[in-house]
Amino acid sequence: MSFIEVAEDSDFSYQNLPYGIFSTLSNPTPRIGVAIGDWVLDVTAVKHLFSPELVEKCIDGQTTLNALMGAGRPAWTEFRNTLKKILSKDDPSLQNNAGLRASALIAANEVTMHLPAQIGDYTDFYSSRNHATNVGTMFRGKDNALQPNWLHLPVGYHGRASSVVLSGTPVRRPSGQILPSPTATTPVFGPCRLLDYELEMGFFVGPGNKFGESIKMEDAADQIFGMVLMNDWSARDIQKWEYVPLGPFNAKNFGTTISPWVVTMDALAPFRLPLEPKTDPEPLPYLVEKDSYQFDIKLFTAIQGENMTKPEVVTSSNFKYMYWSPRQQLVHHSVTGCNMRPGDLLGSGTISGTEPHEFGCLLELCWKGTKEVKLGESGEIRKFLKDGDDVIMTGYAQGMGYRVGFGKCTGKVLPAQQV
Amino acid sequence: MSFIEVAEDSDFSYQNLPYGIFSTLSNPTPRIGVAIGDWVLDVTAVKHLFSPELVEKCIDGQTTLNALMGAGRPAWTEFRNTLKKILSKDDPSLQNNAGLRASALIAANEVTMHLPAQIGDYTDFYSSRNHATNVGTMFRGKDNALQPNWLHLPVGYHGRASSVVLSGTPVRRPSGQILPSPTATTPVFGPCRLLDYELEMGFFVGPGNKFGESIKMEDAADQIFGMVLMNDWSARDIQKWEYVPLGPFNAKNFGTTISPWVVTMDALAPFRLPLEPKTDPEPLPYLVEKDSYQFDIKLFTAIQGENMTKPEVVTSSNFKYMYWSPRQQLVHHSVTGCNMRPGDLLGSGTISGTEPHEFGCLLELCWKGTKEVKLGESGEIRKFLKDGDDVIMTGYAQGMGYRVGFGKCTGKVLPAQQV
Ligand SMILES: [Ca+2]
Ligand SMILES: [Ca+2]
Ligand SMILES: [Mg+2]
Ligand SMILES: [Mg+2]
Ligand code: NI
Repeated sequence: MSFIEVAEDSDFSYQNLPYGIFSTLSNPTPRIGVAIGDWVLDVTAVKHLFSPELVEKCIDGQTTLNALMGAGRPAWTEFRNTLKKILSKDDPSLQNNAGLRASALIAANEVTMHLPAQIGDYTDFYSSRNHATNVGTMFRGKDNALQPNWLHLPVGYHGRASSVVLSGTPVRRPSGQILPSPTATTPVFGPCRLLDYELEMGFFVGPGNKFGESIKMEDAADQIFGMVLMNDWSARDIQKWEYVPLGPFNAKNFGTTISPWVVTMDALAPFRLPLEPKTDPEPLPYLVEKDSYQFDIKLFTAIQGENMTKPEVVTSSNFKYMYWSPRQQLVHHSVTGCNMRPGDLLGSGTISGTEPHEFGCLLELCWKGTKEVKLGESGEIRKFLKDGDDVIMTGYAQGMGYRVGFGKCTGKVLPAQQV
Repeated sequence: MSFIEVAEDSDFSYQNLPYGIFSTLSNPTPRIGVAIGDWVLDVTAVKHLFSPELVEKCIDGQTTLNALMGAGRPAWTEFRNTLKKILSKDDPSLQNNAGLRASALIAANEVTMHLPAQIGDYTDFYSSRNHATNVGTMFRGKDNALQPNWLHLPVGYHGRASSVVLSGTPVRRPSGQILPSPTATTPVFGPCRLLDYELEMGFFVGPGNKFGESIKMEDAADQIFGMVLMNDWSARDIQKWEYVPLGPFNAKNFGTTISPWVVTMDALAPFRLPLEPKTDPEPLPYLVEKDSYQFDIKLFTAIQGENMTKPEVVTSSNFKYMYWSPRQQLVHHSVTGCNMRPGDLLGSGTISGTEPHEFGCLLELCWKGTKEVKLGESGEIRKFLKDGDDVIMTGYAQGMGYRVGFGKCTGKVLPAQQV
């Protein structure tokens, strides 16, 4: 246990200790912090309690987590163990040093968060079977819902790294080419009419691999640093017109929002759910995991419209519904010799469960516009997002009396640019 | 004219002055260089001849061209004008200073080149009508060759920035999932059998735009810094199986090669070819250029197999065949508010002309495997690339007695990884 009190329903328990990049009014230099309860531990303020090697390599002067991500598993273990010790109620070094506590522990509501990493490349997958089946059913009918390749490989596409933004950043409704009616063949230019969220999680890559060499399944776990919540904002009407044959482009590149705190795979390890290996079909050998597992992470999306007094949950899903695992995504991505770098972000794809309330985007919830989605008892309904809507994603793994949670991933929809 | 002699057929005339990043054995720090004839001018060695503002902002300590790219049009003009002056036969400062010449002018064969920019995001378009028509005809027949969206927008996809490598870097044949026969429905894992090059050009983005704001056509020319040759290596069999519905992924992410010298738009300006505005169909207003033009840049791809004594040209194309222009690509990319950053790389797409010898990739040259491509009089034939093949791209604009050329973009195919 920690000497810092943490509420049972706090996302940031002593068992969690997620990492982020923060600054304060009095010290605007971005630096590494650790969330615990309502506090942020300034790692640079307690760096004398870490090994000199770790300080030099991963802490001093670092304005992102890239160096720590790139340092690999032994450094990750040492970093976490040191934090566990510093924050333990059995350790006096911080607990009994009032001056150090005053400088190193900052109230969470007084920090400004920054992107946790410089993201060299961002890739988004499409790895929830329920989501792919729902979307496929809407557009091609039940019998052809899954494309022939879907059960053989984690389908994915390269995304836009520049427009990955931090939770809280408003996202402008994009404009682009859309077909004005289902029978139209000539596009018009205008604001997206079918703006959607996609409830996803993303993971950050560790040390990575050399150009021309691939990451093997047995090494993949040591290449995954930690996870965040992710909203892959999507313009459905732009997507429909543009995506053949090279995939989504403008429909996705106007913004992707991530939560600020990176939850490590060590913190998530207790929430592994062992899985039966896939057999129908069995994946090709390079994608076979000897120990298949997913993570039991409850995930929520709520919407708060401008005239609403509180957010209303529209999606309640779980990361365990993913068909392809993070390791399989990473191994597949690099199997060609594609070099992965520390800080690369890989998105899961929309995470949908089997029940309608578990669907991970409005396209599925409104079933392509054929149903209305009620926002709780607010009296408001949605098919797609309205200007002013706040989209709020949360998620946590539930332990016995504690949580390993992700905080919030939020973004408000701004009206389209005047053209 | 310059006091440095330049052969008529040199790519690097006084009219060109392309920028690159180089280092030397005696000074391994990457820094900005300018190619002229058989020489490289070390810009840091003559920095006292530039304005202090330019030195501080764009030259001192720069190991990439990103700062110069981000500095914008006035800085680009000043930088180029200063170089023109320094290298002019009418200016004594370098010409008449033997000591300075000895330290600032380095024989081109003594430098090591590096990537010209840190590439935040790389995007590849598909903007040659002949190429898209040829590929479409092969896969869907003549009547459905162009997809309905193709003439309305520059189709493109986000690529992988990490695996953009410099000319001369060997590229390993990727392995991945492929269908073993035209009728197969279950993939096998193995080395790509249909490895291809794509003859392209890429341009680097200038200052860029803010998240949520778009680049307007009238500002687009000031957002394009310069161009390079580009080989978008492609695994046709991997692509065929994976690309529905989210586009090419592993088929492209194993490597993209660019030439080291960035030729500025100022150097290319004399080679503009005015175009009739597009009318069939007319593009939507945001894509309309008041002054339509393309560039007359001759482009070549040659292959030298391991047993061949010299490269043999297989493609002779020209940048003028592009349907969508760089400005249209950039404006379309950012129209959603997608933020572009200095150093972003945008690829043209394969550049094919109308005649068979102008086709920009082997897929078209061998017409999906139905024809053999003769490598000159070497006696060798190809359908797709063999291990050991060197793929050599070159290109230049021809002036009166001088060239504005790009140097070489080369890469040798290494055998697949043993699995
Ligand atoms: Ca997505
Ligand atoms: Ca291409
Ligand atoms: Mg996105
Ligand atoms: Mg490529
Ligand atoms: Ni990228």
